[in-house]
Amino acid sequence: MNRSAVPPPVTLVLDAAGAWLPARMEAVEERLRQLLEGHGEELAADAGSTLEAGGKRLRPMLVLLSAGPGAGEGAIRAATAIELVHMASLVHDDVLDAAPLRRGRPTVVARSGRPRALAVGDLLFSRAFAELAADGGPERVERLSAASVALALGELAQRRDAFDLSISAGRYLRRCELKTARLFECACLIAQAQEASEKTGALETFGREIGLAFQLLDDVLDVTGPPERTGKARGTDLLDGTVTLPLILARERDASLAEVDLRSLDPAGAEAVCDRIAATGVLEEVRGGARRRVELAKRALELRRALEPERRQLLELVAEGIVERYS
Amino acid sequence: MNRSAVPPPVTLVLDAAGAWLPARMEAVEERLRQLLEGHGEELAADAGSTLEAGGKRLRPMLVLLSAGPGAGEGAIRAATAIELVHMASLVHDDVLDAAPLRRGRPTVVARSGRPRALAVGDLLFSRAFAELAADGGPERVERLSAASVALALGELAQRRDAFDLSISAGRYLRRCELKTARLFECACLIAQAQEASEKTGALETFGREIGLAFQLLDDVLDVTGPPERTGKARGTDLLDGTVTLPLILARERDASLAEVDLRSLDPAGAEAVCDRIAATGVLEEVRGGARRRVELAKRALELRRALEPERRQLLELVAEGIVERYS
Repeated sequence: MNRSAVPPPVTLVLDAAGAWLPARMEAVEERLRQLLEGHGEELAADAGSTLEAGGKRLRPMLVLLSAGPGAGEGAIRAATAIELVHMASLVHDDVLDAAPLRRGRPTVVARSGRPRALAVGDLLFSRAFAELAADGGPERVERLSAASVALALGELAQRRDAFDLSISAGRYLRRCELKTARLFECACLIAQAQEASEKTGALETFGREIGLAFQLLDDVLDVTGPPERTGKARGTDLLDGTVTLPLILARERDASLAEVDLRSLDPAGAEAVCDRIAATGVLEEVRGGARRRVELAKRALELRRALEPERRQLLELVAEGIVERYS
Repeated sequence: MNRSAVPPPVTLVLDAAGAWLPARMEAVEERLRQLLEGHGEELAADAGSTLEAGGKRLRPMLVLLSAGPGAGEGAIRAATAIELVHMASLVHDDVLDAAPLRRGRPTVVARSGRPRALAVGDLLFSRAFAELAADGGPERVERLSAASVALALGELAQRRDAFDLSISAGRYLRRCELKTARLFECACLIAQAQEASEKTGALETFGREIGLAFQLLDDVLDVTGPPERTGKARGTDLLDGTVTLPLILARERDASLAEVDLRSLDPAGAEAVCDRIAATGVLEEVRGGARRRVELAKRALELRRALEPERRQLLELVAEGIVERYS
């Protein structure tokens, strides 16, 4: 992994951790590369775009940190599998949006067309499960499968609710839980023993809450930009018809926002709606909600004292990094 | 399962088998229904189209027959999982072709749009692995994953070779092996013990050869129709740019066929090319090749005498049904 290309929070954690963590992150990266370059020329051509699709490797890092320095090869496989599911979902998302770029690189769909991007996503999904199975443990396969079913259900919910300005905050949060939080939760749990324990309970809460915080802050960023930093225009969600918490809360404060017709927005109109959302002051409220979730996540680790101090501190750094990056 | 709606070969086998087989096929059908109706309203709306997508349940039948009457719940789960992967691939295929109908019913993409169809396919893939994992046995997950990776690679190969009239018969056959034969092979092996034995060797050959025969005959049907029977216009493959064995062989006999520009074909032009392919007499050659593969499949079961007579006969009926249905 090219350390200099890694965004700050992940770098911070890598610097703070013992040598074991960077070495394992590198092993995951190597494994991803092997898998993507080991399927013949069909996939190799798209391997670069696909490797980039995942981005900062936050989920594999959660797997490795939750598993700890004593974990074996199985943790690397599990981390690889989680990232493959994440990549698959992004490659498929790009198919729908016909997105030209992701992280400044051409997407698979832009490079190679929709049919190939669809097949590449299917392939990554399938590879993810093989990666886990090799290591035994049906409960891991079941966990990852449940998380990836949740991801698809979250996607379905998002499409069903598209362009509907009347959806409630509760409904939005349930969708975020499916679409984002479950895979974070899965990353924290997948390398644990199956039995419920203090530790798994703490990690479950931790994963879910930082996943939700991540999504909330991502949705704030869509409103605030700046595009140089987010890599996409402000209001992209609005143009897709995706109604997120900032708009849901803003519409309570500025009733005229409830009248916006999302279907007729153009990019300039979407930016104007972003400005109106920001003017209501709800963004600080959403950011505050995300920060509270991160605090809750940290407290879960602390209260139960189920993890040794080094790992707890590193997980806390990840959690704080999620907030820092977006503030 | 509505027996009257099942095409002849599957019905024949159900009639010939002891009561155990129809009972288990019904259990698979029930399980598929549960899974598709048990994911809330998001999926329920598309459940009907999705259940239809798989069609004749040939692959689950192969799982159940290969597993035999003594097999437990695990065989039903494995059969369900294989069918879920098959359905997922069809739902995604329909996304690419924006196909309005499959088996006379609206496709998921036609009913609910591309984003939902993409998510439904992803969900079916993920559910398939959960279905297997519940039962233990990492080798099953690995087998199904390998088959579904092959399916995606076959799809990639098909897209890469699209519109290329110069591809060889060998290249075509390798693609069919990835796209079709591996899932048939997997269906025959997935409920077996992991160790290689006479029986698994026989079932492996059987599954691969009938899978190839199935694909060869499917490709002949695209040339011959009739549409009332196949549910699609003649020459649909040509319009998609999919070059199959009938055209590859025909171009050796009628050099002018090598000059056809597939990209500029319209439906009437595609039918005209079908007529020119048929006029070369290659269709009987391809059908003969399929029949030889079915014979080879049957011989594999017979030579090794690894299966008891009832199951061998039923598997033979399935193999013959594949040829009968298309002759």
